[in-house]
Amino acid sequence: MPKKVDHHERRTLIADALMRVAARQGLEAVSLRHVATEAGVSSGMVQHYFRTKDEMMAFAMAVVRERNQARVTEAIAQLGEEPPPRLLLRTMFVTILPLTEESRADGRVALAFLAYTAVRPEAATGLRADTRELTGFVASLLPGPRRQERAAGLLALMEGLGVYLLGGHYPAEEALAALDAQLDVLFAETGAADAG
Amino acid sequence: MPKKVDHHERRTLIADALMRVAARQGLEAVSLRHVATEAGVSSGMVQHYFRTKDEMMAFAMAVVRERNQARVTEAIAQLGEEPPPRLLLRTMFVTILPLTEESRADGRVALAFLAYTAVRPEAATGLRADTRELTGFVASLLPGPRRQERAAGLLALMEGLGVYLLGGHYPAEEALAALDAQLDVLFAETGAADAG
Repeated sequence: MPKKVDHHERRTLIADALMRVAARQGLEAVSLRHVATEAGVSSGMVQHYFRTKDEMMAFAMAVVRERNQARVTEAIAQLGEEPPPRLLLRTMFVTILPLTEESRADGRVALAFLAYTAVRPEAATGLRADTRELTGFVASLLPGPRRQERAAGLLALMEGLGVYLLGGHYPAEEALAALDAQLDVLFAETGAADAG
Repeated sequence: MPKKVDHHERRTLIADALMRVAARQGLEAVSLRHVATEAGVSSGMVQHYFRTKDEMMAFAMAVVRERNQARVTEAIAQLGEEPPPRLLLRTMFVTILPLTEESRADGRVALAFLAYTAVRPEAATGLRADTRELTGFVASLLPGPRRQERAAGLLALMEGLGVYLLGGHYPAEEALAALDAQLDVLFAETGAADAG
């Protein structure tokens, strides 16, 4: 049985190589062989930690989710105590959207994973629970009626903006303008009139 | 030089096989060999029509776009002359969203292509022009101020709902409720109050 520290180091080494390959060439290009070459280890070694491509993809997606969560937590912490709901939502979405090189690399992995789970829905169980939880959280921050539906729509809008940003369909400023216009519409009813 | 009718028939045969493989296993699983087996022809024959995987993917996406356009045109034609803008938009979006087996299969191909172009943006040139044209069309149907931003947001919302539907994150009725809530919000300012 290998020493624990060895085990953890190797797994991290291989996981980093996996994420580099995924961010550079797309998750669908990831293979045991690719990752082994990138990490400078044997295919057998990679297979010891990730038995299948499914396991590698699920792991990469989990890494992206953890990184996103850490970025969001950090960005929100900088807003001080009890930030206004609209500012909180905007900060969260801007942090998740692929607007920096770092979040673009993660966004490409997430999009590839979404495409993968569209064909193999059983791989998306954890992701679906996340979406449901996030919808509830966003709904709790929205004013006015039909919060659940509006939250679902707002999350979908963010997901779609991410897809369009990654494909270069919208430049960053247009995506942010669309997000702000949406927040204006949703928060207009609380009293602040939509200046238009 | 082969006869023209032969040429067209073969290309259609291979294209159909390509679309079946893409819808069943995902576009990233598409290879010359896979498509050849599915079509019952040689790999060399497939390569005669599609030289690279890039060409196959671009072709599959073009087929999906054409099918979508045909479905939308047909659905809108059934609305009669000069349908109200809101009904026109809703009909268009409901037709494009992956809510039937047919549109789900096409949606999976489109999502895989989007994931592919996130890594190779040069492949998305045609798609970007489409998005820009569609944004302008949607903007022309929206009431109130900031139409361009709202149209960009509405399209992103539809794209995101499509992604969530394909991954089984939202059931059909929740996706439609989110779409209707968004249309209610955007069209509320024209005079019809948002009943909430």
